[in-house]
Amino acid sequence: MTLRPSSKEAEEVLGRYFPVLDHGFVSLVDYMGTDSCIERAARVSYGYGTRASNQTRGLLRYLRRHLHTTPSEMVELKFHCCMPVFVARQWIRHRTANVNEYSGRYSLMPMLFYTPSKEQLQKQSKSNHQGRSGEGLSQATYDTAIAQWNDLRTKGQAQYEWLTDNDVARELARIDLPLSCYTQWYWKIDLHNLLHFLKLRADSHAQWEIQEYGRVMAGIVRRVVPLSYEAWIDYDVCGAKMSRMELDALRSLLEVREDGTVSARPGATLSPGQLEIMGLSRREAEEFTSKLKQLSVPNFEVALADGLPPDVFEKRFADAAPKAEPHKPQP
Amino acid sequence: MTLRPSSKEAEEVLGRYFPVLDHGFVSLVDYMGTDSCIERAARVSYGYGTRASNQTRGLLRYLRRHLHTTPSEMVELKFHCCMPVFVARQWIRHRTANVNEYSGRYSLMPMLFYTPSKEQLQKQSKSNHQGRSGEGLSQATYDTAIAQWNDLRTKGQAQYEWLTDNDVARELARIDLPLSCYTQWYWKIDLHNLLHFLKLRADSHAQWEIQEYGRVMAGIVRRVVPLSYEAWIDYDVCGAKMSRMELDALRSLLEVREDGTVSARPGATLSPGQLEIMGLSRREAEEFTSKLKQLSVPNFEVALADGLPPDVFEKRFADAAPKAEPHKPQP
Amino acid sequence: MTLRPSSKEAEEVLGRYFPVLDHGFVSLVDYMGTDSCIERAARVSYGYGTRASNQTRGLLRYLRRHLHTTPSEMVELKFHCCMPVFVARQWIRHRTANVNEYSGRYSLMPMLFYTPSKEQLQKQSKSNHQGRSGEGLSQATYDTAIAQWNDLRTKGQAQYEWLTDNDVARELARIDLPLSCYTQWYWKIDLHNLLHFLKLRADSHAQWEIQEYGRVMAGIVRRVVPLSYEAWIDYDVCGAKMSRMELDALRSLLEVREDGTVSARPGATLSPGQLEIMGLSRREAEEFTSKLKQLSVPNFEVALADGLPPDVFEKRFADAAPKAEPHKPQP
Amino acid sequence: MTLRPSSKEAEEVLGRYFPVLDHGFVSLVDYMGTDSCIERAARVSYGYGTRASNQTRGLLRYLRRHLHTTPSEMVELKFHCCMPVFVARQWIRHRTANVNEYSGRYSLMPMLFYTPSKEQLQKQSKSNHQGRSGEGLSQATYDTAIAQWNDLRTKGQAQYEWLTDNDVARELARIDLPLSCYTQWYWKIDLHNLLHFLKLRADSHAQWEIQEYGRVMAGIVRRVVPLSYEAWIDYDVCGAKMSRMELDALRSLLEVREDGTVSARPGATLSPGQLEIMGLSRREAEEFTSKLKQLSVPNFEVALADGLPPDVFEKRFADAAPKAEPHKPQP
Repeated sequence: MTLRPSSKEAEEVLGRYFPVLDHGFVSLVDYMGTDSCIERAARVSYGYGTRASNQTRGLLRYLRRHLHTTPSEMVELKFHCCMPVFVARQWIRHRTANVNEYSGRYSLMPMLFYTPSKEQLQKQSKSNHQGRSGEGLSQATYDTAIAQWNDLRTKGQAQYEWLTDNDVARELARIDLPLSCYTQWYWKIDLHNLLHFLKLRADSHAQWEIQEYGRVMAGIVRRVVPLSYEAWIDYDVCGAKMSRMELDALRSLLEVREDGTVSARPGATLSPGQLEIMGLSRREAEEFTSKLKQLSVPNFEVALADGLPPDVFEKRFADAAPKAEPHKPQP
Repeated sequence: MTLRPSSKEAEEVLGRYFPVLDHGFVSLVDYMGTDSCIERAARVSYGYGTRASNQTRGLLRYLRRHLHTTPSEMVELKFHCCMPVFVARQWIRHRTANVNEYSGRYSLMPMLFYTPSKEQLQKQSKSNHQGRSGEGLSQATYDTAIAQWNDLRTKGQAQYEWLTDNDVARELARIDLPLSCYTQWYWKIDLHNLLHFLKLRADSHAQWEIQEYGRVMAGIVRRVVPLSYEAWIDYDVCGAKMSRMELDALRSLLEVREDGTVSARPGATLSPGQLEIMGLSRREAEEFTSKLKQLSVPNFEVALADGLPPDVFEKRFADAAPKAEPHKPQP
Repeated sequence: MTLRPSSKEAEEVLGRYFPVLDHGFVSLVDYMGTDSCIERAARVSYGYGTRASNQTRGLLRYLRRHLHTTPSEMVELKFHCCMPVFVARQWIRHRTANVNEYSGRYSLMPMLFYTPSKEQLQKQSKSNHQGRSGEGLSQATYDTAIAQWNDLRTKGQAQYEWLTDNDVARELARIDLPLSCYTQWYWKIDLHNLLHFLKLRADSHAQWEIQEYGRVMAGIVRRVVPLSYEAWIDYDVCGAKMSRMELDALRSLLEVREDGTVSARPGATLSPGQLEIMGLSRREAEEFTSKLKQLSVPNFEVALADGLPPDVFEKRFADAAPKAEPHKPQP
Repeated sequence: MTLRPSSKEAEEVLGRYFPVLDHGFVSLVDYMGTDSCIERAARVSYGYGTRASNQTRGLLRYLRRHLHTTPSEMVELKFHCCMPVFVARQWIRHRTANVNEYSGRYSLMPMLFYTPSKEQLQKQSKSNHQGRSGEGLSQATYDTAIAQWNDLRTKGQAQYEWLTDNDVARELARIDLPLSCYTQWYWKIDLHNLLHFLKLRADSHAQWEIQEYGRVMAGIVRRVVPLSYEAWIDYDVCGAKMSRMELDALRSLLEVREDGTVSARPGATLSPGQLEIMGLSRREAEEFTSKLKQLSVPNFEVALADGLPPDVFEKRFADAAPKAEPHKPQP
């Protein structure tokens, strides 16, 4: 029983563990605040006076559009997450969260490793210098890659077990575990910073594996604060920044009449060369036109049926630890 | 209805408004997490394995003693507070919180001002260069001070009303309101940073007026996380740091036997001069001896009976606004 | 003598005090890093290999356009600033800076107050609910306002002096000083957060008084990191965000050909009503068209000749302190 | 040429690369501020009035002793560091720094791995559940461990090269590189947060490998701000916190006379059992007596002769990259 504001849709998924990748998960373990709480915090700035609740949506959209982000810091979410170390290393770069991670100095690491599917093991992108291209490998190359990884992991696991059997300090025994090894943490963050994280990490330029986490978390956010989620999709995820030069290009192509009508200027046209003269680099000209192409609107959601009880994962991890050692006494 | 962890003692005060100073208040409007949640976050570092719940206290004390503060960041509290501007200015220096403050640009300021009691209007301290001395003023001096303030405030209020009646921009009309004028905000912070704030601001070196807020908030914290509160009192509030030189002094006065017994060294004694030779400045020598004097243990608590419903303050503020202006339309 | 990277243009203004408002100032007292240092930090992400220096500009613009802001956190600026308390209260809301403010608990406050010019003492805006309208007051209203303020300030100053003469604790003597009273601080911040601050505070929606500080600081930034400054103007200050609905509107008005040419669709036009059907609120439709109107590009700069030596202000403040008290001894 | 405050001792090491572990390094690449700058920032809090410069030390010690840490935030240091991934993972937990790390998505990882010396490859500690014990392995066990590691690394390197030769996306090719693999970053932090980092990471409870980095950085700090360094050693590194119960124990063993003399109370003695009655757990009683044992004072310093020019490491890393690929074009 609580007097605290709560969200029915969020309560439905609270404490359920949603699988991500081959062994990972995301679970919402607690949350504080709803869309109304953001409104209430914003209203303190505007002084007293009550509002019809159908104005909540308008206010939240106004705040997001105008980057008035402090009220959305009044909502907080806490997750329990499990991911490969290379994903954890990208994730932890977001410094505004609170984190408690599983310690490989104190505890034995479960021997669970991420294996990319054939679909995902792609070639290096030519255009995006840090990502994959969409182009897959031949079956033979994929099979070889996986066989080599399995061999490495079997040997690495054997060595880890041999070292810890020989009572070598865990903080050293683990140093040759691969970056594909799974770790886990509690992670708590306010809504403003979470949406910033999701904008970057559920985006197609992020490494696909972290996107998978982002998509589940975005689906959870939608349940906690549906109006804020909708505003985030409309103004951030599916919006775009235009530079001074891009706005100048738009101004030369469009005209605004006194009555607020916007019209195409008859015959107005800008070739890539003309865009360059207006100050856009070749790359910027490409970025400009791609903003004008149709985009599909993402629809992040989590299905209740996908949420597993925590003990499924607890057992899987306990089983994957090198040995069923009795937990050491502790302060 | 919620599945979220909750605390019965915290729920009792949730949403109640506790008066502070002559017109201010503190209210807990939401919270996330309990002592057990801190333990759970810490345990993720230590791996799987369940613990008897009577070990929670031991773990929380261990964590606090050893400055393992990240698990306590997993608890979050949200307050609605009202305080004079000069108190707000000290408070806002703590940068790790989320804040939404009443806006004097958008809304009319309520004409409520803080008046120190005769007890509190003291002389400047000789020893603490930034505080008050404990020595009061004569009745005549006090009466004069208050009369002058009342005069200033009456004139200031009249001018604010005259300016706003003349439709002068509120962001300018307010610039001659005094620092004693009340403002209010929503303020959200994690437990680790809150306890740091309270350590400094509920301390006797802080300005007395902000201490009054700190004491109420500490009483609320005790209801949300009683074990963490107890550890904070024992290790932080009533503890003390000893320098290398102070530890050297202790070592020359005490001896530790093999079996762990600590004894006074017969005849060992250190005069202020000898302390100075060991590297303590005169001021440090005084600080050292004062740490060895008996201290009373503070007992922060809030009485349920003191908690008022929110509309008491809402009405008081509405009544104190220059005019009952209809709230302006807004996005 | 130093091996550290330095900027000739920044060195020219280093330690000069630029007047702002009637008694305030901004001074760059130290800085760390240049445009090249941002490039170097970014390159560590991209691995080894040297670049022609004429690629610095391209890289810095790319980083800013794509919100890769961490390299710009590698530059740091430290300012000494003096401003009225109501400006300080807006400024301090930016939590990512380091601050040391003059203490009214420890020291006597100089009796310097901000007086708005006739030009600036404007009426409340009807459209922007928190700002001024551009419409001035009559000469008579202005004169009355100023006379009332002067009267309040004279009385307030007299009381402050009377209280401190009577040795009342300074932390209390000051509580009826007005928000127009000047304070000062050292303020240190990294370039990324500074540009965010300046985007908000040198913007026309900010209170005019804090804009005045923002404009001087932006002129100083230009001297420290000219290429980053230029990118900030092009992508942030003179850029705009477009929402999903605004992009949809643009897509219906423009077409992109295979070869990258962008053309106005013949006869395409969108009335306010049609924009509303596409999901823009009336207010958003207005915001959309205003983004398409021509904008002047701000040109922030500081003139060397305006920079005064620090002792000008030091003397002014010392003279304005209630009495020439000998500075108290201190630890 | 610069007017900025600088430190001769810091300039001597600026840009030199100090080796750490078998392939890592730490280099100070820039710094802002000196001990005097901390004083100046603190003085703005105290208002005008000049101080004899021999009072700087007293003020800095006072500030540190009383946790007035904001003035030390006015100094900033920037490092270029190279360390194994498992060290980087501990390091990055300190969220108050600015970081730019080498990207394994964009660039090829150099094939350099950390190999613990025989001295360091120790058994798990019985008392400190997360560290090593001091007890070494037999020569045979050590040799086997290293042979296994070398085998794993040779295979891992071969696979990484095979994958990247087959143009597999780098972000995936790297996922089975071990945690012992070296990465590098630019890392910038203010002095207050750096000293907190060093207190934890140059401490004997930290993993030995990160301590090695901490010791070099502490030696560099000493050159930038010698007085702050000395105060940090005296009050933080070699100081200790005492709890309420520990202070009570001290009070029962010692007495303070009117004149400030501290004496051992004749015959006063506290057995472990009596300490337990006073509220100390068994573990706390042990911690208490260990604080009273003599401690050696660490002497962090870097020898100029150890500092190498940057190209030594640049070449080593370029040579260790899978192939001499021409650097890819980039924005």
